[in-house]
Amino acid sequence: MTQPWKTAITRVQPNEVRLRGYCIDDLMGQASFAQVVYLAIKGELPSPAVGRLIDAMLVSSIDHGVTPPSTEAARVAASTGAPLNAAIAAGVLSINKHHGGAIYDSMSILEELIRRSAESSLPLSSVAATLVAEFKAAKQKLAGFGHRVHTNDPRTARLLALADELGLAGQGVAAARAIEGVFAQAGKPLPINVDGALAALLIDLALPHELANAFFIMARVPGLVAQIHEEQTREKPMRRINPLDAEYDGPGERRV
Amino acid sequence: MTQPWKTAITRVQPNEVRLRGYCIDDLMGQASFAQVVYLAIKGELPSPAVGRLIDAMLVSSIDHGVTPPSTEAARVAASTGAPLNAAIAAGVLSINKHHGGAIYDSMSILEELIRRSAESSLPLSSVAATLVAEFKAAKQKLAGFGHRVHTNDPRTARLLALADELGLAGQGVAAARAIEGVFAQAGKPLPINVDGALAALLIDLALPHELANAFFIMARVPGLVAQIHEEQTREKPMRRINPLDAEYDGPGERRV
Amino acid sequence: MTQPWKTAITRVQPNEVRLRGYCIDDLMGQASFAQVVYLAIKGELPSPAVGRLIDAMLVSSIDHGVTPPSTEAARVAASTGAPLNAAIAAGVLSINKHHGGAIYDSMSILEELIRRSAESSLPLSSVAATLVAEFKAAKQKLAGFGHRVHTNDPRTARLLALADELGLAGQGVAAARAIEGVFAQAGKPLPINVDGALAALLIDLALPHELANAFFIMARVPGLVAQIHEEQTREKPMRRINPLDAEYDGPGERRV
Amino acid sequence: MTQPWKTAITRVQPNEVRLRGYCIDDLMGQASFAQVVYLAIKGELPSPAVGRLIDAMLVSSIDHGVTPPSTEAARVAASTGAPLNAAIAAGVLSINKHHGGAIYDSMSILEELIRRSAESSLPLSSVAATLVAEFKAAKQKLAGFGHRVHTNDPRTARLLALADELGLAGQGVAAARAIEGVFAQAGKPLPINVDGALAALLIDLALPHELANAFFIMARVPGLVAQIHEEQTREKPMRRINPLDAEYDGPGERRV
Repeated sequence: MTQPWKTAITRVQPNEVRLRGYCIDDLMGQASFAQVVYLAIKGELPSPAVGRLIDAMLVSSIDHGVTPPSTEAARVAASTGAPLNAAIAAGVLSINKHHGGAIYDSMSILEELIRRSAESSLPLSSVAATLVAEFKAAKQKLAGFGHRVHTNDPRTARLLALADELGLAGQGVAAARAIEGVFAQAGKPLPINVDGALAALLIDLALPHELANAFFIMARVPGLVAQIHEEQTREKPMRRINPLDAEYDGPGERRV
Repeated sequence: MTQPWKTAITRVQPNEVRLRGYCIDDLMGQASFAQVVYLAIKGELPSPAVGRLIDAMLVSSIDHGVTPPSTEAARVAASTGAPLNAAIAAGVLSINKHHGGAIYDSMSILEELIRRSAESSLPLSSVAATLVAEFKAAKQKLAGFGHRVHTNDPRTARLLALADELGLAGQGVAAARAIEGVFAQAGKPLPINVDGALAALLIDLALPHELANAFFIMARVPGLVAQIHEEQTREKPMRRINPLDAEYDGPGERRV
Repeated sequence: MTQPWKTAITRVQPNEVRLRGYCIDDLMGQASFAQVVYLAIKGELPSPAVGRLIDAMLVSSIDHGVTPPSTEAARVAASTGAPLNAAIAAGVLSINKHHGGAIYDSMSILEELIRRSAESSLPLSSVAATLVAEFKAAKQKLAGFGHRVHTNDPRTARLLALADELGLAGQGVAAARAIEGVFAQAGKPLPINVDGALAALLIDLALPHELANAFFIMARVPGLVAQIHEEQTREKPMRRINPLDAEYDGPGERRV
Repeated sequence: MTQPWKTAITRVQPNEVRLRGYCIDDLMGQASFAQVVYLAIKGELPSPAVGRLIDAMLVSSIDHGVTPPSTEAARVAASTGAPLNAAIAAGVLSINKHHGGAIYDSMSILEELIRRSAESSLPLSSVAATLVAEFKAAKQKLAGFGHRVHTNDPRTARLLALADELGLAGQGVAAARAIEGVFAQAGKPLPINVDGALAALLIDLALPHELANAFFIMARVPGLVAQIHEEQTREKPMRRINPLDAEYDGPGERRV
C-alpha cells in the first residue's frame, strides 16, 4: 500500500466543502470572488482592500478587443464549430511568453531592482539608472514599459492610484516608478504599461512570480467567453477572420 | 475590398479602452470583477446586488478538491512538465456534458417547467408534479437534484438564501423549489444541488443558456491554477496520480 | 475492491509489448505505419494493399497550405511562444464540423444511400437521383461534392483510381460515383471532392463512422508540425498572421 | 501595403496541390505516409529505405497501453464527454519533458558525444567513458538508457537491427552503442531503451533536434485515437479511471 499524497487546498466531506480551512458557504456572500481567488492560490483570505485591488487588476485585463492572438485563436476554433470549452482552450494555449508573458518578465526586472537596492543599500532611483543603462547597452527592451497603442495607458494610472489610495503600493510600485523616472529624466518618457503595473502589484501582493501568466489567464477567460459567444451568435462558420478588419458597433460612450 | 466585420464588445483607441461603452479605467475600482464579467458577456453593467450574487456563484464553484476529472487532467498534464497554460487547457477540455454539464441540463428542465406553467396558467407546483412523473416513467434523472456526496449541499442553501436576501430570486428559483417540493411531498427528499441552484440563478440573471458551461469554467479556472501550482511545487514529476488516495493536510477549520 | 476494467488494445509485460496480439517488434519493419494505424483502431492487421490505400489517404490530407483554420490556430499559438505540442493542440482543437467534418457528413450521406438501395432493392443511381432532389428541395449542400478552389480535385481522381487498381473500391465508392453521375446527367457537374473520396474509402475499409474526423486529424498532425516549425524558425514572434497574404517560395516543380 | 510573408511547404492552386514541389497526387500511391511525413518536415523526399525505417520508428511508439499520462489525460477528457479532437488535444498536452521528452534529452547527449569525439579526434568509446563518469559524478541519469519495465526493450533491438540492415545506422547509433558499451564493461548493463534508439536514428536521419517531441506525438496520436475510441465505446461516462487497475482482454498471441 502506498502512502496517500497530500493536498492543502480543499477538504470535501459530506455536506461540507472547506477551502483552505474556510467553509465555502461561509465565504459565499462575505468574500468577493477576487478575495477567494487569492485565498485559493495563496492560502490566506486577504482583506477587503486587497480584494478591491485584485478586482481592479482582473478587470483591467478582461478584454482588449479582437486583435490579441488568444482572441484570434479562440475565434478561429469557434468558427470551425468547436464547443465553447475547446475554443477557450485554444485561446489559453495562445497566452505565452510573447502574449501575456510581459507581466512575468516585468516582475523579473522589478524583483532584480529591489534585490540590488536591498543588497547595495542604494536607493531604487540610482539602481534603476544603472539597470536601464545595462538594458540600453544590450539593446534589450524593458518589459512593462511602453505600449504599441497607448502612450499613456489609462489602466496603469488607475491601478497605481488605487494602490496608493488603498495603502497597498509597496516596493514593486516604487521600483516601477523608479524606472519610469529614469526615462522621464532622460527626456525620453517611456511610461509604465498595464503589464508593468500588474507586475508591480503582483509583487506587492506577494503573489508567486511563476503565476504571473496564470493571473492574466484568469482575467482573460471571461473576455474569451464573450468573444467566442459573439463569434458563435453573430458570424457564419468558417469565415476568414482578419482581426485588423473589425469595426466596433456596440454601445456608445457610457459612464459608471 | 471586403466589408469590415462587427464587434460590440471592446473598442480600443489610443489611451482609451472601452468595454461595452464603459472606460475600463472607470470600471476599475468602481465595479467588481463579477459585475464586469456580466458586463462583458451580457452587455449591461449589473447592480452591485447582482454583482454580489455572481461573486457568490463563482465562489461556490471555484474548487471541489482533487477528484473532479478537470483537476485530474490538469494535474496529469502538469506532472509531465506542461507549462501552466497548457495544464489549464487540459483541465478545461475535461469540462463537458458529464462534468460541469449538469448546470446546462438543469437549466433546460427549469426553463421547460417555466414555459409549461406560463402556457397552461397552472402553478409551478402542479406542472412540476407532472414533469417529475414523466422523468420517473422514463427512468431519467433530473439534472440539478441530488448529489453523490452531499445530501444537503451547503452551497445550495447559501446561494438561495442570498438570492432571497438580495431580492433576486425569480422564476428560476421558484421552479427549482417546486421540483424539490414534489420530491419532499412524496417522502423521498431529493434536494436541489449546487448545479440546480446555479441553473436557477443563471435563469433569474438572464444569462444565456448556452453559456452555462462557460460560467462553470470561469469559476473553476482559478481552482485549477491552485491545483496545478500545488502539483508543480509539492510533487515529483511523472508520479502516478490516484485522486482517491489524497489526504488533506491544509489549515484546520477557520471562520471568515 | 473494484473489478479491474478491460482494454483490448495493448498488453505491456516486461520485454514484451503486444498490440492487438502482435509483438510490436514483429510489426516493425514488416508492416507499414499505415497498416498499424488500422490495426490499432480496428483490431485487425490489414493486407499490404489496404495499407497502401491508407498510406495514400493519409498523404492526401497531410497539408493544404497556410489557409486552413487548424493551420492558422497552430501558427497563432506558435507565434506567441507556445511549445510545439501546445501549438499542435490548438490546431487539433480547430478541426471540427466545419473544417475536416465534411468527411463525417459525407459518410452519413453515402451510408444513407447504400441503406436505401439495399432496403428498396433499387440501384444506387436511382436512389441517388431521389436523394439529390431531396437535398435540392431542402436547399442543403451535399457534403463531399464540389470545392471552393478545385473544380477537379487531383486527389480525388488518384484516390479512386488507386482503390480500383487495388480492388478495394466497394459500395462507398459506387455510392459516391452514383451521386456524381446525377449531377453530371443534369448538366451541372459537381465532382466528388477529397472529403467525399475519403468518406467513400473509409466506408469501403469499414472504419468506424465516428472516427472520420480522427482520420483527418491523424493525417494532418504532421502537416501542422511542418507549419509550426516553419513559423518558429522563419518568423518573428507576435506577428500579424494573415493567411491570405502568404507567398510560396519553396522548391519548384518536381516529380517523384 | 505589407510585404507578403513566405512559406516553403505547400503551394495550392486550382486543381493542383504541391507539397515541397511534388504534386500530392503524384506522391499518393508512390510514396508511403512515412516518406511524406519526412518530406513535409525536412523538404526532401527520402528513399524507400529511409521510409521503411521511419515506418518502423513510428510503429514502435504508436501505443504503450493505458498507463502513460497522455493516455490517462485523453481518457479522462473522453470520459467527461469531450469530442474526439478535444480528447486528443488533452493527450497531446500531456506529452512534455517527463513523458516523450526523453527522446529530446537523449539526442542532446548523443550529439554532445559526437561533437566531443569530432573535436578531440578520440574514438566514441573513450569519450563515452568520460561522459558516463561525468553523469555519474553529477548523480544524473542518462536519458535513453534503462527502462522501468523493460530490461531488454524488444523495440530497441528491432530498430537498431533494421537500421543496420538498411545501411542507415550512422554516428547516432554508434554513439548510443558506445554508451551502452561503457555500462556493459563496468558490469552494470544499462541497455539502450526505445527513446535512446529513436534519438540515435533521428540523428542519423538528420531530423531537427527540436522536433524530437513532435516525432513522438505524430506516432502516438493514432494510439490515442484507439484509446479514446475504446473509452467512448466500452465504458460509462464519468468513471474513476485507475490506469493501474486495467486488465487486457484483447486477442491472444498472434504473428505477422
